[in-house]
Amino acid sequence: MKASTNMKEYRLSDIEHLKVHGRTTGRLSPLTLFWTGSGIELNATGSELWIEVEVDYEQYEPWISLLVNGAVVSRQMLTAGRYWICLFRGMNAAKAKQIRLVKDLQAMSADPACSLHIHAVKSDGHILPVEEKPYKIEFIGDSITSGEGAIGAKEEEDWIPMWFSAVHNYAALTAEALNAEYRILSQSGWGVLTSWDNNPRGNLPDYYEQVCGLLTGEKNRALGAFEAHDFASWQPDVVVVNLGTNDGGAFHSPPWRDEATGETHQQRLLEDGTYHAEDVQAFEDAVVQFLRKLRRCNPQAQIVWAYGMLGIPMMPAIYRAVDAYRKQTGDRNVTVFQLPDTTAETIGARTHPGRLAHERAARDLSAYIRGLLNGAASL
Amino acid sequence: MKASTNMKEYRLSDIEHLKVHGRTTGRLSPLTLFWTGSGIELNATGSELWIEVEVDYEQYEPWISLLVNGAVVSRQMLTAGRYWICLFRGMNAAKAKQIRLVKDLQAMSADPACSLHIHAVKSDGHILPVEEKPYKIEFIGDSITSGEGAIGAKEEEDWIPMWFSAVHNYAALTAEALNAEYRILSQSGWGVLTSWDNNPRGNLPDYYEQVCGLLTGEKNRALGAFEAHDFASWQPDVVVVNLGTNDGGAFHSPPWRDEATGETHQQRLLEDGTYHAEDVQAFEDAVVQFLRKLRRCNPQAQIVWAYGMLGIPMMPAIYRAVDAYRKQTGDRNVTVFQLPDTTAETIGARTHPGRLAHERAARDLSAYIRGLLNGAASL
Amino acid sequence: MKASTNMKEYRLSDIEHLKVHGRTTGRLSPLTLFWTGSGIELNATGSELWIEVEVDYEQYEPWISLLVNGAVVSRQMLTAGRYWICLFRGMNAAKAKQIRLVKDLQAMSADPACSLHIHAVKSDGHILPVEEKPYKIEFIGDSITSGEGAIGAKEEEDWIPMWFSAVHNYAALTAEALNAEYRILSQSGWGVLTSWDNNPRGNLPDYYEQVCGLLTGEKNRALGAFEAHDFASWQPDVVVVNLGTNDGGAFHSPPWRDEATGETHQQRLLEDGTYHAEDVQAFEDAVVQFLRKLRRCNPQAQIVWAYGMLGIPMMPAIYRAVDAYRKQTGDRNVTVFQLPDTTAETIGARTHPGRLAHERAARDLSAYIRGLLNGAASL
Amino acid sequence: MKASTNMKEYRLSDIEHLKVHGRTTGRLSPLTLFWTGSGIELNATGSELWIEVEVDYEQYEPWISLLVNGAVVSRQMLTAGRYWICLFRGMNAAKAKQIRLVKDLQAMSADPACSLHIHAVKSDGHILPVEEKPYKIEFIGDSITSGEGAIGAKEEEDWIPMWFSAVHNYAALTAEALNAEYRILSQSGWGVLTSWDNNPRGNLPDYYEQVCGLLTGEKNRALGAFEAHDFASWQPDVVVVNLGTNDGGAFHSPPWRDEATGETHQQRLLEDGTYHAEDVQAFEDAVVQFLRKLRRCNPQAQIVWAYGMLGIPMMPAIYRAVDAYRKQTGDRNVTVFQLPDTTAETIGARTHPGRLAHERAARDLSAYIRGLLNGAASL
Repeated sequence: MKASTNMKEYRLSDIEHLKVHGRTTGRLSPLTLFWTGSGIELNATGSELWIEVEVDYEQYEPWISLLVNGAVVSRQMLTAGRYWICLFRGMNAAKAKQIRLVKDLQAMSADPACSLHIHAVKSDGHILPVEEKPYKIEFIGDSITSGEGAIGAKEEEDWIPMWFSAVHNYAALTAEALNAEYRILSQSGWGVLTSWDNNPRGNLPDYYEQVCGLLTGEKNRALGAFEAHDFASWQPDVVVVNLGTNDGGAFHSPPWRDEATGETHQQRLLEDGTYHAEDVQAFEDAVVQFLRKLRRCNPQAQIVWAYGMLGIPMMPAIYRAVDAYRKQTGDRNVTVFQLPDTTAETIGARTHPGRLAHERAARDLSAYIRGLLNGAASL
Repeated sequence: MKASTNMKEYRLSDIEHLKVHGRTTGRLSPLTLFWTGSGIELNATGSELWIEVEVDYEQYEPWISLLVNGAVVSRQMLTAGRYWICLFRGMNAAKAKQIRLVKDLQAMSADPACSLHIHAVKSDGHILPVEEKPYKIEFIGDSITSGEGAIGAKEEEDWIPMWFSAVHNYAALTAEALNAEYRILSQSGWGVLTSWDNNPRGNLPDYYEQVCGLLTGEKNRALGAFEAHDFASWQPDVVVVNLGTNDGGAFHSPPWRDEATGETHQQRLLEDGTYHAEDVQAFEDAVVQFLRKLRRCNPQAQIVWAYGMLGIPMMPAIYRAVDAYRKQTGDRNVTVFQLPDTTAETIGARTHPGRLAHERAARDLSAYIRGLLNGAASL
Repeated sequence: MKASTNMKEYRLSDIEHLKVHGRTTGRLSPLTLFWTGSGIELNATGSELWIEVEVDYEQYEPWISLLVNGAVVSRQMLTAGRYWICLFRGMNAAKAKQIRLVKDLQAMSADPACSLHIHAVKSDGHILPVEEKPYKIEFIGDSITSGEGAIGAKEEEDWIPMWFSAVHNYAALTAEALNAEYRILSQSGWGVLTSWDNNPRGNLPDYYEQVCGLLTGEKNRALGAFEAHDFASWQPDVVVVNLGTNDGGAFHSPPWRDEATGETHQQRLLEDGTYHAEDVQAFEDAVVQFLRKLRRCNPQAQIVWAYGMLGIPMMPAIYRAVDAYRKQTGDRNVTVFQLPDTTAETIGARTHPGRLAHERAARDLSAYIRGLLNGAASL
Repeated sequence: MKASTNMKEYRLSDIEHLKVHGRTTGRLSPLTLFWTGSGIELNATGSELWIEVEVDYEQYEPWISLLVNGAVVSRQMLTAGRYWICLFRGMNAAKAKQIRLVKDLQAMSADPACSLHIHAVKSDGHILPVEEKPYKIEFIGDSITSGEGAIGAKEEEDWIPMWFSAVHNYAALTAEALNAEYRILSQSGWGVLTSWDNNPRGNLPDYYEQVCGLLTGEKNRALGAFEAHDFASWQPDVVVVNLGTNDGGAFHSPPWRDEATGETHQQRLLEDGTYHAEDVQAFEDAVVQFLRKLRRCNPQAQIVWAYGMLGIPMMPAIYRAVDAYRKQTGDRNVTVFQLPDTTAETIGARTHPGRLAHERAARDLSAYIRGLLNGAASL
């Protein structure tokens, strides 16, 4: 095997023009990627480029996708260990290539051992400045935003990393359509108030201000996942919240019981099939509180509550909550947008939205956001 | 010219198996078609079939479309006069053909002289029973539901009947996708509370209980347009209301002044670009009142407020109003559905939704309604 | 009814800027439209415009389509008689409108009585010069090129004018994609050598040099249909020949018998399902002869034999014939192009290509012709 | 990291129900994958499955794609070495998964060191019989059939393995549409008579009867690449030949000079831009000879010469050659089919057909082949 001569190794912290995507601690020795869609981007000359990763997990292994000049060229499982991965080789050394490595798996709250670090890069070329995009968008969501089911056959039922995609989901596609940088905070099964199974800890808002607070365990603590996020370091132009689907599901699930305390929680469905008023109010209160937190953390952002890819049962409650928030605060830059529902034609693996459903959602959502960014009045 | 021998002429009232579409007085001598999408359907054998129409107008001439076995085969302007139109000729006389003649123009409140009557049919065949469809849907809307701009070049600006279509609009396409019979009550520029130019008379709800009360003049009175509609005669499974676009526009229009009384009306926009609270409340009250009326008239129907083909500025108000109505009444069979927005790619004539926009809206709306009809819980 | 005042009537021969489409005699008193796709184009100001037609037939009535500013807005049957048709009314009088009236029915060799004349125009505006298009294309074909089945339900079986379209067929769509003026010479069931039923008179080449020689009868003679066409008056940049489908069908049909002479003709199929060598050679000879005639009449045109919308059984023979022609003549500007086959998804009425099939064919053919026009070498 | 217990390792030769795709020597210790699209298929239970590969190259590294239950889930570069790759983990152990590992890179004649072996599988489940597909198709082609450019940004110019795809190309998609097993023999730049640069050794036919005779070097000899292929072991229902594009290009390239002998070769273009008659005849002779060889090796197959994804300049010569072959042999089961050309909209990397172009080609080609398989007469 002919290897490139002149390969030089660089610790990430030594790379001047390194672009890190996704919410991280800022540490680079190594860089830990928590969230789906996080990763690194390099504008690199040279014929060949490798990165050194370190991977571990108890149950759920990370996956990565690789984009070269904006096109997805590779996607692979990362098994445990510390090793080098070749991102490209044999290319015209003089030309700069835009290289983006993306974590294709959500932060895995169900596996405290799951981790993905990037230590170093080696190359026979130079790392040039990455061109910054004109917009920044943050997406907050559940399995839909984690791209669960965007890959895989319709018949798949196992809950495994293989079916998750950070590049074929509506968030990535919306950002691409708008030429925006994007970050994703998402967790399958979670909601605003509770998870699909009524667990009140399965809510995104409680962890919003940490780097990746929904993870657990000492290892993640040591990696800085529970540290306060520095919002000043990255202020999005738009925050998209796609939550509510699991809050709706909770009404149809049995009560959740805290094994430690014996306490239970349940969003109650009345006999006539409607939501118990107190419980749906609790959901709305949670939405309002979350919007307050989002606004505090992102003073200038347009906030869009985007919902509907798996039905719209919570939409009235979402509208009420956003209304209440707007009345309380006078904040007009919060709007609601209905995403297109998934159909038999567009469904993917695990009865989740497939690639076509994500493409349709991105088409509609990007058009809506483009309107907001172009100054369409928010009413 | 070889004409069919054996042609026999039938007054409409003599045809046992005549199917009339659209809301009419029930009179057949002649049949007057008021609304867009109204018309007659015949399941006819014979080689040839003609109908006798009588047409008048001061300014806006009616148009018709003809469907043979479900396919649109003809569309033409009807100039003034009483004359016969050939719907088909030269066909296999033994076979039954499903013939549907559709008025392609909305009820024209702006032209009290505009009228379209059907007097008679002549044919060398027999009129057999029409196969009834499993569902009935009523659409209530504005120019979008009138199919304004669904036909014609993008550059067109004249407000003329030529650009209106009752067969390429989302209402017809939704009904077709659901195999449903449909009726349309619609008026360009009108709303729930006022028209786009703040005229409080330009509202659909006030006229809902009449056959076609938004028309004016003695001629229309004589034709029965102002008579009470007999709701028992046709109970829809679904009522779709696509109103709000012009109520939203009113906030951006100058006040309307009643020349007779000197009174003015305006939906006020505040300096910060938001809606005046009292005025948007008036809109919401109008929605609630309209829902009460719709429910009274259609006790069993699913009512869907479908909105969004030209933006969603009124959506929060619509959701508030539907919420208020549901709380007041306990009626759960009223829901809101956001239609896909029109884009540069899907726009038609007169900056209205084009054929593609109507097709997308119908795809999404029919999927939603199919869920309702299949008993998806309304929450 | 309010009619426009100031209407003035113009004989066609008095209109300076009249644009006539399609091959005609050049006579304008009246203008007789023989071929599908023929018609008149006007660039007209004024609020209203009518044309006077005169229509007759024994069996097959003509249809017309109307395009306003390039968009199809109307399509209607023309019953027998002499009468005025309103093309538009109520439009902004100051603006010029591009109006194109198109005969939607092929020349009807089966009905010597069928005729469509245009006598006059009346309008309250002016007729301005029509903008000439940069290219001219002539299409020669059979039912496919006549747009048979491009309109109507899939179940239709009657052979009647209703299912023919001159604007939704691949010829019109190809011309539109290339911004070209087009003419069509076509006849359902006909071929290069014989018609589908082995009638040697059912061939287009024999009549190519006449205005519309495939018609019959004294009336058409009087109208000039059999006069020599003046090729110098309109030289196409491209001639598309879409023939061969019926020549192929003839091999599977019983012999044709001339009732007058008792002579019969048949393209013979061998027992093994192949074509009899002499008969397929006769077809090839007919292709070569036709190409010689086409070249003589159109010295500068690119000639494209485009075939395949209903299968490609004759393609080898077509290639052999074109090869032979090129060898004999050294003429390199004759090529063969395979059109996409019609599928279950794209089929229309009467098991002919539907609208989708025509759109696909036009997409591919226009790309191919664009290459020829841009000087892609013909090899 | 939690690894599955109960993992057992199997040499390939020990697996009863192993399905090998692609033309190979039949050796399994190890299995060497030469051609693009070759690979192994397993119907496996168990929660986890790994394979052991051994990879080498001087310049061009192999890539693989992984399909799980028919869906592409992974694609990755294989760097040099002998190592284990995890194909899945964490799955429901009781369920059988259809696993297909596909070599995504053509046989690399330009790199005699390039090799990919599979040694073993380890799993905690069972390997069940693979369901056989009803049809077998063999594709023979050049870069188009190698899927060159089906992956990657349009701007890419480097000739590297990254842009080749065995699963997004028209061959794989055609086979999928027909539910057929497929094999591919292909080489970028090669033709029937010469390669694009006039090298007479760059022809596929000379190597057709060997396992993978176009490779070079002692290593490949030892691996059995030059052994005679056992045609009895796998008889295709259809052979698709997509060659001619580079033979056409040769006419526009400078002469090729054999450095060893000093001999040169060139397909000559005349001054008027046409092909020299002798040289195009040499191409046609080569086509005829290849068809004879194909028929000898595949007595029952339908042979389809499918050509046109990068223009059709050689089509007349291909038709002449197929005609000549049919006349000489009486063999009627050889036909020609034109594939849709690549357009600005469908182009991919390296100015080769992109994914959309391959999808369109597959749609048309699979419809054509379906006709052949259903017994549509070949004429």
